[in-house]
Amino acid sequence: MKIIIIGGVAGGATAAARLRRSDEQAEIVLIERGPYISFANCGLPYHISGAIAERGKLLVTTEAGFTARYAIDVRSRTEALSIDRAHKTVTLRNLDSGEETVESYDRLLLSPGAEVLKPPIPGIGSPRIFTLRNIPDLDRIMASLGENKPRRAVVIGGGFIGLEVAENFHDRGLFTTVVEGASHILPPFDDEMAAIAHAHMREKQVELYLGDKVDHFEDRADHTIVFLASGKRIQADIIILSIGVRPEVKLARDAGLELGAIGGIKVDEHLRTSDPAIFAVGDAIEVVNKVSGKTALIPLAGPANRQARIVADNMLAADPSACKKYRGAMGTAILKVFDLAAACTGLNEAAVQALGIPYRASITHSGSHASYYPGSQQISLKLVYGLDGRVFGAQAIGIDGADKRIDVIATAIKAGMTVDDLADLELAYAPPFGSAKDPVNVAGYVASNVLDGSHDIIGWSELRDILRDAPDTIELIDVRTPEEYAIASLPGARNIELNQLRKRLGEIGRGKPLVVFCQVGLRGYVAYRILKQSGFDEVSNLTGGFKTYAWATE
Amino acid sequence: MKIIIIGGVAGGATAAARLRRSDEQAEIVLIERGPYISFANCGLPYHISGAIAERGKLLVTTEAGFTARYAIDVRSRTEALSIDRAHKTVTLRNLDSGEETVESYDRLLLSPGAEVLKPPIPGIGSPRIFTLRNIPDLDRIMASLGENKPRRAVVIGGGFIGLEVAENFHDRGLFTTVVEGASHILPPFDDEMAAIAHAHMREKQVELYLGDKVDHFEDRADHTIVFLASGKRIQADIIILSIGVRPEVKLARDAGLELGAIGGIKVDEHLRTSDPAIFAVGDAIEVVNKVSGKTALIPLAGPANRQARIVADNMLAADPSACKKYRGAMGTAILKVFDLAAACTGLNEAAVQALGIPYRASITHSGSHASYYPGSQQISLKLVYGLDGRVFGAQAIGIDGADKRIDVIATAIKAGMTVDDLADLELAYAPPFGSAKDPVNVAGYVASNVLDGSHDIIGWSELRDILRDAPDTIELIDVRTPEEYAIASLPGARNIELNQLRKRLGEIGRGKPLVVFCQVGLRGYVAYRILKQSGFDEVSNLTGGFKTYAWATE
Ligand SMILES: Cc1cc2nc3c(=O)[nH]c(=O)nc-3n(C[C@H](O)[C@H](O)[C@H](O)COP(=O)(O)OP(=O)(O)OC[C@H]3O[C@@H](n4cnc5c(N)ncnc54)[C@H](O)[C@@H]3O)c2cc1C
Ligand SMILES: Cc1cc2nc3c(=O)[nH]c(=O)nc-3n(C[C@H](O)[C@H](O)[C@H](O)COP(=O)(O)OP(=O)(O)OC[C@H]3O[C@@H](n4cnc5c(N)ncnc54)[C@H](O)[C@@H]3O)c2cc1C
Ligand SMILES: CC(C)(COP(=O)(O)OP(=O)(O)OC[C@H]1O[C@@H](n2cnc3c(N)ncnc32)[C@H](O)[C@@H]1OP(=O)(O)O)[C@@H](O)C(=O)NCCC(=O)NCCS
Ligand SMILES: CC(C)(COP(=O)(O)OP(=O)(O)OC[C@H]1O[C@@H](n2cnc3c(N)ncnc32)[C@H](O)[C@@H]1OP(=O)(O)O)[C@@H](O)C(=O)NCCC(=O)NCCS
Repeated sequence: MKIIIIGGVAGGATAAARLRRSDEQAEIVLIERGPYISFANCGLPYHISGAIAERGKLLVTTEAGFTARYAIDVRSRTEALSIDRAHKTVTLRNLDSGEETVESYDRLLLSPGAEVLKPPIPGIGSPRIFTLRNIPDLDRIMASLGENKPRRAVVIGGGFIGLEVAENFHDRGLFTTVVEGASHILPPFDDEMAAIAHAHMREKQVELYLGDKVDHFEDRADHTIVFLASGKRIQADIIILSIGVRPEVKLARDAGLELGAIGGIKVDEHLRTSDPAIFAVGDAIEVVNKVSGKTALIPLAGPANRQARIVADNMLAADPSACKKYRGAMGTAILKVFDLAAACTGLNEAAVQALGIPYRASITHSGSHASYYPGSQQISLKLVYGLDGRVFGAQAIGIDGADKRIDVIATAIKAGMTVDDLADLELAYAPPFGSAKDPVNVAGYVASNVLDGSHDIIGWSELRDILRDAPDTIELIDVRTPEEYAIASLPGARNIELNQLRKRLGEIGRGKPLVVFCQVGLRGYVAYRILKQSGFDEVSNLTGGFKTYAWATE
Repeated sequence: MKIIIIGGVAGGATAAARLRRSDEQAEIVLIERGPYISFANCGLPYHISGAIAERGKLLVTTEAGFTARYAIDVRSRTEALSIDRAHKTVTLRNLDSGEETVESYDRLLLSPGAEVLKPPIPGIGSPRIFTLRNIPDLDRIMASLGENKPRRAVVIGGGFIGLEVAENFHDRGLFTTVVEGASHILPPFDDEMAAIAHAHMREKQVELYLGDKVDHFEDRADHTIVFLASGKRIQADIIILSIGVRPEVKLARDAGLELGAIGGIKVDEHLRTSDPAIFAVGDAIEVVNKVSGKTALIPLAGPANRQARIVADNMLAADPSACKKYRGAMGTAILKVFDLAAACTGLNEAAVQALGIPYRASITHSGSHASYYPGSQQISLKLVYGLDGRVFGAQAIGIDGADKRIDVIATAIKAGMTVDDLADLELAYAPPFGSAKDPVNVAGYVASNVLDGSHDIIGWSELRDILRDAPDTIELIDVRTPEEYAIASLPGARNIELNQLRKRLGEIGRGKPLVVFCQVGLRGYVAYRILKQSGFDEVSNLTGGFKTYAWATE
């Protein structure tokens, strides 16, 4: 059995290793265009600031080490030019010598990754504009940082990689600006959750231009000007373009392999392309989103690694019945945003809305661990779920413990759990690590109350619209303390502190629907319960409280 | 509806709050023997060192605050003396005035917790011996620390609370000794996992006496001597007895309520006792262990809190069909052991063995996050699973991220997941938070290899027995580097570095079963794969590697 693998990093190298472990006899050839196989793509941005100080640490395993351990025929600086499916051969070019060779295969694996989007914006060819995908890209950026000593960095694109680069520029001492075309950074998050990151980044003195796009770039003698569609201009000494990636499908397309509707290589559940001898994994393929059931591009290392392990087995399988299924991905992801972690899994509210599925969404703010134990940090957690309780997705942002809660919910979603199941999870509790009612339990509590009708909530945007368009149609009650109310409240809100509510029910008019709120939602919920049982029929509680409202409308 | 709740802390106060939220009209009386309701039992040990500096922080909510918010009739310093089930009354004694009153109920909830075991060891009445269960206990300990300035502390019992107390004594500057009757501390853990904590505590200069019991105590003028069964003696200025708790069932027993075989109050799945008007939750009840299906005592705050929320609903339910089910607990728990977190869920190997269920157990050591990103810490993870792949339990110990992995696995166990599902989990990955192959995925990989026959493992204790009893029956190969081998290896092991194995196969005799090992298990596994496919039929790899073996046999 002779196997050729194109692409020697996350998907390709992992598959090669698993193939060798499974089959000591197979001939395995690993083709990589770049100078390095098996490097840490995900670590690249952190070398900019020196957080990962040694460049060598980014080389997870060297060619020599990999060959010694796994007896793989590794060919770096070698590009696969074309695939001849009829003869089962691949044409390769050695990028150093220019020599071209033809290599035959029994099975071929494509793990070519993705290419960085570089739209034809005028001026995009500026030598001050970089992209970041691999080690040579990083080397170019590092060289420019060293030679030109830029002071002002502009990152185009507020997605995960863009934000990582921005943070690392900032940590290196550059004044950093992020330009994002959408109304918020962090695309997989909903507005009010991303707003937490906006506030945090601004606190760190990162400048954000939201809802604005680059019109063109103009080079000046010692800097470049970024012209935005809004007419604004930003001076930049270095610019990183990070507006997304697209599956690297040239080889596949040229070879006549079927592509999907959203531009990735089409594979079946065994990760086989339209040619039975050719398999594909990683950023280049389309996967099924496990939650929505729709086709999706999920260019993340976790899925690439797991697909690689499955595909290796399937490439060696005697027949399809012996193959393993890849059951799709759900886009669990996380990003360090300075001191915060922003993590998510499944679908966000906007995505569920776009699918037209009935849903509810609630927001809680809980301590990362018991509040009486030092160091507890707030986690803001948004849960999106169906009317039958099925969890569609979650987003968590906080200084500590957001990753843990999203991993738990990702596991729950994979298991098809409902919000009642989240309420019932038995998670590890001691004061330094959690709470007897873990944030995930509490999110489950709130969601089950919402679904069983014991807690009517209103979202910040709905309330904002009412306050803007028809403020007189509701009565707004702030149940926080007079001290909290004095600092800031919602326009038109009356203050009746929760602990006095029972005594002061007479002050509340019965003509209009009531909206109650507190800081995070808990006291508002208790007030809601009192009011509903005291003859007020239409009451709702602002989910996520004043905190979420203030962030979202800032 | 008039409801009396006996016990005003984790179970009782939580149930009271939920009852009020659900029913604004009910009369709710909360009876607590101690001076405080709703205090943070779990935080008590941390006040000893000052980690939780303010005593007031341990009072999660005050009587006044609770009454104001929830309109509950709170009676602290009031003991429930007896229950008259026929007349549905409880006799109460005000512990300040001595006055006794009789209070009627429609529904009664028992959440009396547990009492600390205090066996009749000679000398146990010493004024230098304390227990820790509530605030008055803590006050006594703090007073003694202040007045007597003890320098040497002895903690009897290496369970969770004992170890917390020991750590906090140590952090306060006392020379601290822990005496544990079993062969290892941390009862829910298996030996080789607890051994990690042994090593760590000894590094911190905490003295451990394992497999030894107190024979008697003798007071001297200015200290007490702890005499152990082994004949050893320890001088102590202060002693904490922490050998466990037993359900507080006096009231229930006297009232003729059914108790279970292991000494707790018997409840049905709706948390109702044998009397339909009386419910019970918390440390006092017996629960079903969700994994084993057997009855268990699980005296932890998480279960108590969740039971309380369920029982509150059931106490108000019109009939059993409207009741919610408590589906049992699995003993997910965590403990801070100095810099380590030790977390577990489900059954350990010893428990599965005792049940006589066929199982496998494997150990991995993975980084808490990508190794190239600074601050990655090793997590040792043990997974115990059935031959069908069902996960029975897991234990994780490490400086960072053990809590997360156990919470994920606890969620997976609740969902009935298999080790293949663990391999397939999509967890949040970015370099500061995890790895593209998360430690949970890797544990799933290893376990599925073990189950599908592609990886034969041997446990440290089995190998220890062979090396002791019949070392000549196997051939032992250390596949680490010569440098690692030179520092320490197993007796009789031959060193063939993994990366040279293919070339040096000829040096290995074919007569005996081979046992290979490396530092953590990964290289051993790769070596295993090479050997198995090179004509060596009987090979096994030491699970957890030399690292686990060394810890366990230290
Ligand atoms: C800066 C950065 C940060 C990231 N951070 C994260 C993160 O925190 N978390 C996360 O989950 N994911 C992250 N990712 C994404 C992750 O790295 C990818 O999802 C993953 O590497 C995809 O694996 P792959 O094998 O499909 O592609 P790659 O790992 O990109 O490997 C593809 C390789 O194929 C080679 N190739 C392509 N075409 C040819 C050809 N014709 N001939 C020869 N070789 C070819 C390319 O040179 C490339 O090296 C990050 C990516 C980048 C760039
Ligand atoms: C020091 C310590 C540390 C702990 N750490 C953790 C931890 O980290 N994680 C964890 O999960 N769990 C921990 N626990 C256990 C946790 O506190 C208990 O599981 C939980 O409190 C049980 O709740 P409960 O309502 O059953 O009992 P409790 O919270 O103990 O409340 C019972 C109350 O009932 C009162 N009572 C009893 N009988 C009567 C009567 N006849 N009349 C009136 N009142 C009565 C008692 O005075 C007591 O206050 C710890 C416990 C202690 C003591
Ligand atoms: C203080 C104490 C009485 C609070 O009990 P509680 O009110 O049930 O718990 P919380 O304050 O966490 O509030 C949870 C409730 O608020 C709701 N809630 C929480 N956050 C919310 C939010 N942001 N928006 C809306 N509702 C929210 C939950 O749904 C839940 O209500 P439900 O049970 O009716 O569904 C109780 O936890 C206690 O006594 N604790 C100390 C004792 C103890 O537990 N010791 C052991 C551990 S140290
Ligand atoms: C370096 C690289 C080639 C390693 O691939 P790999 O060998 O599959 O992965 P690991 O080194 O983690 O080893 C995992 C294997 O060891 C086994 N293993 C791990 N720990 C073990 C232990 N303690 N005992 C026994 N076996 C163990 C696993 O079962 C798995 O083998 P399997 O797939 O046959 O079941 C690949 O991960 C890579 O190229 N990474 C860098 C690129 C990348 O991923 N970039 C994106 C993220 S930055």
